[in-house]
Amino acid sequence: MSEKIVIVGAVAAGPKAACRARRLMPDAQITVVDQDDLISYGGCGIPYFVSGDVADEKELRSTTFNMVRDSYYFKQAKGFEVRTMTKALSIDLKQKLLHVEDLRTTEKDSISYDKLMLATGSRPNVLPIPGNDLDGIFTISSLHKAIAIKDCLAKGRVGKAVVIGGGAIGIEMAEAMADLWGAETTIVEFMPQILPRIVDQTLASMVEQHLKKNGVTVYTQETARKFERDDHGKVSKVITDKREIEADLVIMAVGVRPRGELAKNAGLLVSSHGGIVVNQRMQTSNPNIYAAGDCVETCNLISGKKAYAPMGSIANRQGRVVADNLACIPSTFNGVVGSFIMKVFDLSVGATGLSLDVAKAEGFDAISALCAQYDRAHFIPTKENMFLNMIVDRSDKRVLGLQGMGAMGDGLMARINAVAGLLEKKAVISDFSNLELPYAPPFSTAVDILNATANVADNTVSGRFRAIDVEDFVAWLDGKQSHPDWLAIDLRHPAEAAPFIEKFQDRWRHMPYDKFRDEYEQLPKDKMLILICNAGAKAYEVQCFLDSVNIKKTVVLPGGLNVIRNLGVDWWPS
Amino acid sequence: MSEKIVIVGAVAAGPKAACRARRLMPDAQITVVDQDDLISYGGCGIPYFVSGDVADEKELRSTTFNMVRDSYYFKQAKGFEVRTMTKALSIDLKQKLLHVEDLRTTEKDSISYDKLMLATGSRPNVLPIPGNDLDGIFTISSLHKAIAIKDCLAKGRVGKAVVIGGGAIGIEMAEAMADLWGAETTIVEFMPQILPRIVDQTLASMVEQHLKKNGVTVYTQETARKFERDDHGKVSKVITDKREIEADLVIMAVGVRPRGELAKNAGLLVSSHGGIVVNQRMQTSNPNIYAAGDCVETCNLISGKKAYAPMGSIANRQGRVVADNLACIPSTFNGVVGSFIMKVFDLSVGATGLSLDVAKAEGFDAISALCAQYDRAHFIPTKENMFLNMIVDRSDKRVLGLQGMGAMGDGLMARINAVAGLLEKKAVISDFSNLELPYAPPFSTAVDILNATANVADNTVSGRFRAIDVEDFVAWLDGKQSHPDWLAIDLRHPAEAAPFIEKFQDRWRHMPYDKFRDEYEQLPKDKMLILICNAGAKAYEVQCFLDSVNIKKTVVLPGGLNVIRNLGVDWWPS
Repeated sequence: MSEKIVIVGAVAAGPKAACRARRLMPDAQITVVDQDDLISYGGCGIPYFVSGDVADEKELRSTTFNMVRDSYYFKQAKGFEVRTMTKALSIDLKQKLLHVEDLRTTEKDSISYDKLMLATGSRPNVLPIPGNDLDGIFTISSLHKAIAIKDCLAKGRVGKAVVIGGGAIGIEMAEAMADLWGAETTIVEFMPQILPRIVDQTLASMVEQHLKKNGVTVYTQETARKFERDDHGKVSKVITDKREIEADLVIMAVGVRPRGELAKNAGLLVSSHGGIVVNQRMQTSNPNIYAAGDCVETCNLISGKKAYAPMGSIANRQGRVVADNLACIPSTFNGVVGSFIMKVFDLSVGATGLSLDVAKAEGFDAISALCAQYDRAHFIPTKENMFLNMIVDRSDKRVLGLQGMGAMGDGLMARINAVAGLLEKKAVISDFSNLELPYAPPFSTAVDILNATANVADNTVSGRFRAIDVEDFVAWLDGKQSHPDWLAIDLRHPAEAAPFIEKFQDRWRHMPYDKFRDEYEQLPKDKMLILICNAGAKAYEVQCFLDSVNIKKTVVLPGGLNVIRNLGVDWWPS
Repeated sequence: MSEKIVIVGAVAAGPKAACRARRLMPDAQITVVDQDDLISYGGCGIPYFVSGDVADEKELRSTTFNMVRDSYYFKQAKGFEVRTMTKALSIDLKQKLLHVEDLRTTEKDSISYDKLMLATGSRPNVLPIPGNDLDGIFTISSLHKAIAIKDCLAKGRVGKAVVIGGGAIGIEMAEAMADLWGAETTIVEFMPQILPRIVDQTLASMVEQHLKKNGVTVYTQETARKFERDDHGKVSKVITDKREIEADLVIMAVGVRPRGELAKNAGLLVSSHGGIVVNQRMQTSNPNIYAAGDCVETCNLISGKKAYAPMGSIANRQGRVVADNLACIPSTFNGVVGSFIMKVFDLSVGATGLSLDVAKAEGFDAISALCAQYDRAHFIPTKENMFLNMIVDRSDKRVLGLQGMGAMGDGLMARINAVAGLLEKKAVISDFSNLELPYAPPFSTAVDILNATANVADNTVSGRFRAIDVEDFVAWLDGKQSHPDWLAIDLRHPAEAAPFIEKFQDRWRHMPYDKFRDEYEQLPKDKMLILICNAGAKAYEVQCFLDSVNIKKTVVLPGGLNVIRNLGVDWWPS
């Protein structure tokens, strides 16, 4: 008799597993159930639907050849049944039955399975504060919500919008509302930076500045306390610990958590965070039941700890592994490294592996190496500055992560891609110093910024490259943090240095890059010398030289003033 | 006493090694000699200088902060001496002396060394045919030649240009001359395809077609026999085995070979191809002499065989390794995988690792998996088709190479980058199926084309995905190669299929993708069915289904008609 495969959930992991299982197991009976009527949609596309870049929600659930992925499509093209509006109620492990309810008719039914797959996804977190259920407050939890949000915007009802949560989805939604619809948009993030745990403070500050330039207000380290209503029961204000913000529409983008109840109620092992526990074959604690996608807990391949990675791309890869195992092909999904990319107006921001904060918290002897360089040959007119931050373990030179920011385009992704796969292979710094990235002037530089960043990491671990923390530097210059005795040594063109000298007087001195070997003796030996150029490389050259003449109280400003320029500091000479 | 380091060659590897050696060894005496007056230039930028994108040759030898890298710069900023116009004549191994000649004064001199580094570069091949020394025939061997070529173009002397050699440099030069200067440009390549040994025939044909669309004539499998002169001794024609081509200017871009004479004459080990033999520490057969860059032989990390990789990016990485070893840091340069990227008008073309032809020639049980897919989410307006070809060893599933073509931009490089480092780690197909590339709709797709290509490779190795060779398919339809009995099954929209049915009559049949499970019984069982869609995925779905109903005489057209469309076949219905 043919095997009966039942799958709960028809968004990403579920359909992927069903499609491949159908191809691998032509005789299997495959049934997919989903409680929604809209299925198999690209949830990551929601911000682009809301912004208007994508005109119709159908595009998010269509194939590249414009067929809508509905029950008809899956039946006819893919060869399996999808029962929409069908809620999975419970699992009878002994009888191998899935109890379901048709939400249209309220009729109940049981589906017999030989193998069951849970792809029940996630649900968005909701802040437990007063007014959280008011009209006009949305989470990004389904296509229906997205349609409702866009409807509000399109009808001109949103003059002011507030996004709670400065993670990737919050930022994407803020851009969507501010850019095309012109809504006055504010992001409120309770951590001290946006994109917390994803990128480190300096990069986050640069992104924050870019958001501000593009008209989005950003408040960090600020907590929403309650929502106020207008006379019609609609949200009108967000009250934080610091201010009141008017709002016609609020988006809560404060993370998601796994939908593990169905599994938990059946007695399957579920983590304390609610994620279904699976092995590398994506099997739950019941060997006849698999799970994949946003509902499972996975493993971080760098820290070796349990992790949660609710991403459509991960769900698809896991879904394929489930199908393989259903068909007795012993595939494994070993875990995640945490690759990430996003568009923020004219920027791209991305990361893979651990940020410095996370790496330290996970017990690594971690340092970071920040590098600023052109993304392609400097004589190519379309060149732009790129910033990479490599996180390495000082003790064994293992590379733990890479984060970066560049112009919008695929250049930053190219560097993230180069690192993602190697992290898992426990690559060390020299793997990246010598990494053979392809080179031609319209694409990269002979020493690619990724090679250069690895070289900075190498020089940092060896103690040759000694940098000041960018945050400390800014705090000194802001006057927010006092440092006994520092002197900035500006190695740039005299014309570039002049306004800084005027601003900072005897704290800022110019020393021409082609004269420092002649003029270094004029430098004071008692002060901390901050060596400053545009990108960091010239400053490092000078640091090496000064070391050789025994002037060792020096630090390089890593990434140079290219970094500071993008932070939007108050003291930047105009 | 301080160590004396002497370096021969001041273009790429030489200056890189000298700069880092200076930083690592503050007390060393470092002297670089070069027989040219123009040094430290980005040779890979020459096509962009000739095209006019780069206005002044000085930009090719300037830093990002606009200092020209001349002897003054190296002395003042980098702290070592460069003697230009100084030719290295011979090495006295016993006395540890480099004998040199000042080409300005013809004065001879000897420089004493403790450690010597050879970075003598390469010289271009010259076709040994009559007229090869005529005025107007150039190789791309130095900045001086590039200046001379641009001078000819700028003075309007080049109505017709011929490039001998369809490798990367030949194509870049053809674009440079055709695009901005409007020269009627012809490429003559003696192999059956352009970019031989770099990409396989199908990709090469697509690139060839793109060149033709942009006005460049391409003749493959055609050999230049001689050059004819006009009355002024200038080249006027290229005579090939097939035709005469008028030419005001000829560029010979037929490869380069190492300049190994200095090493060879000193008794150092030099390969039969002329490359200086070095170990992984970049040491020659004399432990006091290092070598790096275009003058050395290296190792192919995939084939395990000796290789030659004359690239500026490789030279820089090797130069750094030399400096480390001079400073007693035991760095190694293990070899190359052959990463490559180039712009061809509106396309990017790239590769890493072995092409199918090369892999087979090297004894691998190699197959290729061709995949066509959008580079980003299909609902993002800027999406474009991308083509990837993954080469794998059937016996152990090791990935041997990746080649591809995409729109101009960094998207293709992003996929090449993702593969380059993993090739060296002996990654297998499943490493790429699960490779955690970052995903957001403006950058990629949930199942990235690289993941998808690995999936095609997996399905190919397992025998589930059975493809027709694209070249065979084209030959059948051209009528150039007869096949007993084939029938094309077109799975696209009826409107897309109609002109093909009209053209090929009973050889071409439409079967709607949402009806094949109902209608398959109408298919003839005696014919070879070629399953055709736009990208290959639908055809694979149908192949799996037909297998399950025991119709197994089927082949998928890999990459679908998206590939064929770009080949510019004569029979494409208009």
